[in-house]
Amino acid sequence: MVYPNSAPPEPAGSGGDDPRRTGGEFAAIDRIRRLLPAAPPGELWIGDDAAVVAGTAGHLLLACDLVVAGVHADLALVGLDDLGWKALAVAVSDLAAMGGLPGRALVAVAGPPSTDLDILYRGLAAAAAAHGCPVVGGDLSGADQLVVSVSVSGTVPAGPDEPGPVRRDGARPGDRLLLTGPIGGSAAGLRILRSGGPRTSLEEQLALRHRRPRARLVQGDLARRAGVTAMIDISDGLAADLGHLVEASGVGFILDHLPLEPGATLEEGLGGGEDYELLMASPDPDRLRAAFVSAGLSAPVDIGVCTGDVTDRLLAGSHLEVRGWEHRWET
Amino acid sequence: MVYPNSAPPEPAGSGGDDPRRTGGEFAAIDRIRRLLPAAPPGELWIGDDAAVVAGTAGHLLLACDLVVAGVHADLALVGLDDLGWKALAVAVSDLAAMGGLPGRALVAVAGPPSTDLDILYRGLAAAAAAHGCPVVGGDLSGADQLVVSVSVSGTVPAGPDEPGPVRRDGARPGDRLLLTGPIGGSAAGLRILRSGGPRTSLEEQLALRHRRPRARLVQGDLARRAGVTAMIDISDGLAADLGHLVEASGVGFILDHLPLEPGATLEEGLGGGEDYELLMASPDPDRLRAAFVSAGLSAPVDIGVCTGDVTDRLLAGSHLEVRGWEHRWET
Repeated sequence: MVYPNSAPPEPAGSGGDDPRRTGGEFAAIDRIRRLLPAAPPGELWIGDDAAVVAGTAGHLLLACDLVVAGVHADLALVGLDDLGWKALAVAVSDLAAMGGLPGRALVAVAGPPSTDLDILYRGLAAAAAAHGCPVVGGDLSGADQLVVSVSVSGTVPAGPDEPGPVRRDGARPGDRLLLTGPIGGSAAGLRILRSGGPRTSLEEQLALRHRRPRARLVQGDLARRAGVTAMIDISDGLAADLGHLVEASGVGFILDHLPLEPGATLEEGLGGGEDYELLMASPDPDRLRAAFVSAGLSAPVDIGVCTGDVTDRLLAGSHLEVRGWEHRWET
Repeated sequence: MVYPNSAPPEPAGSGGDDPRRTGGEFAAIDRIRRLLPAAPPGELWIGDDAAVVAGTAGHLLLACDLVVAGVHADLALVGLDDLGWKALAVAVSDLAAMGGLPGRALVAVAGPPSTDLDILYRGLAAAAAAHGCPVVGGDLSGADQLVVSVSVSGTVPAGPDEPGPVRRDGARPGDRLLLTGPIGGSAAGLRILRSGGPRTSLEEQLALRHRRPRARLVQGDLARRAGVTAMIDISDGLAADLGHLVEASGVGFILDHLPLEPGATLEEGLGGGEDYELLMASPDPDRLRAAFVSAGLSAPVDIGVCTGDVTDRLLAGSHLEVRGWEHRWET
């Protein structure tokens, strides 16, 4: 359902005289609508049961991410606009990690009535514009805690010379492992925000890395076309995401280099996550490097190699534990 | 992001030693995966950054709906499996209301660690199978309150003889207003569940209408091809959803008939919602009726007519207030 008509029915009043059941939602939607760009001809965005967007002849990508206040974003440290930005950027990052191009976004927001939707949607709209992934619909509901769920569509073109979407399970022994950029910046930025906020321009940049992550869309698309065999975005931390890639691919790894963001610690680089750099496995790193450099991007950073022995999990000669953060669910 | 790797990073621990940050999530995902069907050749569902599904040359529909425990579903009255069913069915109903065919679903679940995901996903999987809209990915997170957000893709074929998606703003004066079936059943079912549960087979059926709504996909597709000018699903109640349709279309209405589900009150029919019958405006109701009957479906029920005077809002000669439930957001 797209915003108008977005509040499900509550027949005969599941909430009794719950104040969430009266007034205000459609006014909020009207304001949201004004914060977002209008649909191009032939598409229908906010305002009907479903959004209508252009189809695609290639592969359609679908991904979603949740951002929960107090779990994935501390509103004492970052703004509601930052939370909105992040919710959209991290969903788009999943498209980048497949080598896909962004399509459209749906935003579902459940939260307390006091939530300032203008500020939240200002961040969502800014991230949508920065990533070329417009918000075309969504849903709103009352809830005790703010939960923002962003779903995105994306595409990978189909064609005789077009490699398909890049999975995480295609790495082979001998493939080099490369990162699109240095890691640990987001975790360092969070540490700085927690200790009273940035005081230098370096700290300011790190805090921005945390507040406003960017999906590596151009890099992901180039990497796909340059024949990478596996790719994943660094959301949970290098150790965890590398673990996902090697486990899915059935390979081991030997890392000899870790490009840390200046100001970040080794622990922040390995475990922090939220950098949204891409980790790529490539049988031809020179080709990958050339593709990045010709496009005017920084060269990807070679961090090590995939091996045929799945028990190889080495960083500078020591065993690296690859398990990352997980949310606990009762079993 | 698709389930594995679905827990965002929490660099350096926004939750301190929050138990949600350790163990269990990947095991939960493995169980979820076993409850859901596997991807067909050429598609990639659960297990990577994004799901890869077949593209479509026609119109792509995107819609999402939130179901919040305690707001849209009372877990003292319905099961977690019912909540899961409902979350998926109501999102698919948005596709039906555009005259679309179901594509794929993404499911984002934020909730307390004690949430029994097996039961929730059993309901989601059953609704996905019943509606032909498989779950291809999603996200999981801890949260204080259970929030389930389902996003769906859908399609409307393109072609010289194919009417496009049916919007809610196309009704014209003189168009007849028709419903795919009787209304009020879900609200009556909720009333019965609240007064100790069903005691007769009629009450059992009404409770089922509440617990397991079904999207009218076949009817929506037939209606589109039979040239309806506007369509909406009855999620917020006939009064509210008719209001959306006439306001968007710039018409008035005169209703002379209201098909109530046996056992439902007039108030439940008008205000209850959650029936997910479709309300259609048609310049040629005979053609619509013939299309339904040839397909072996019950004939749509004629409830009245659209007028050229937007102030006409009449039910059996009396003024009908068309405002439905809304969640309140501070302005």
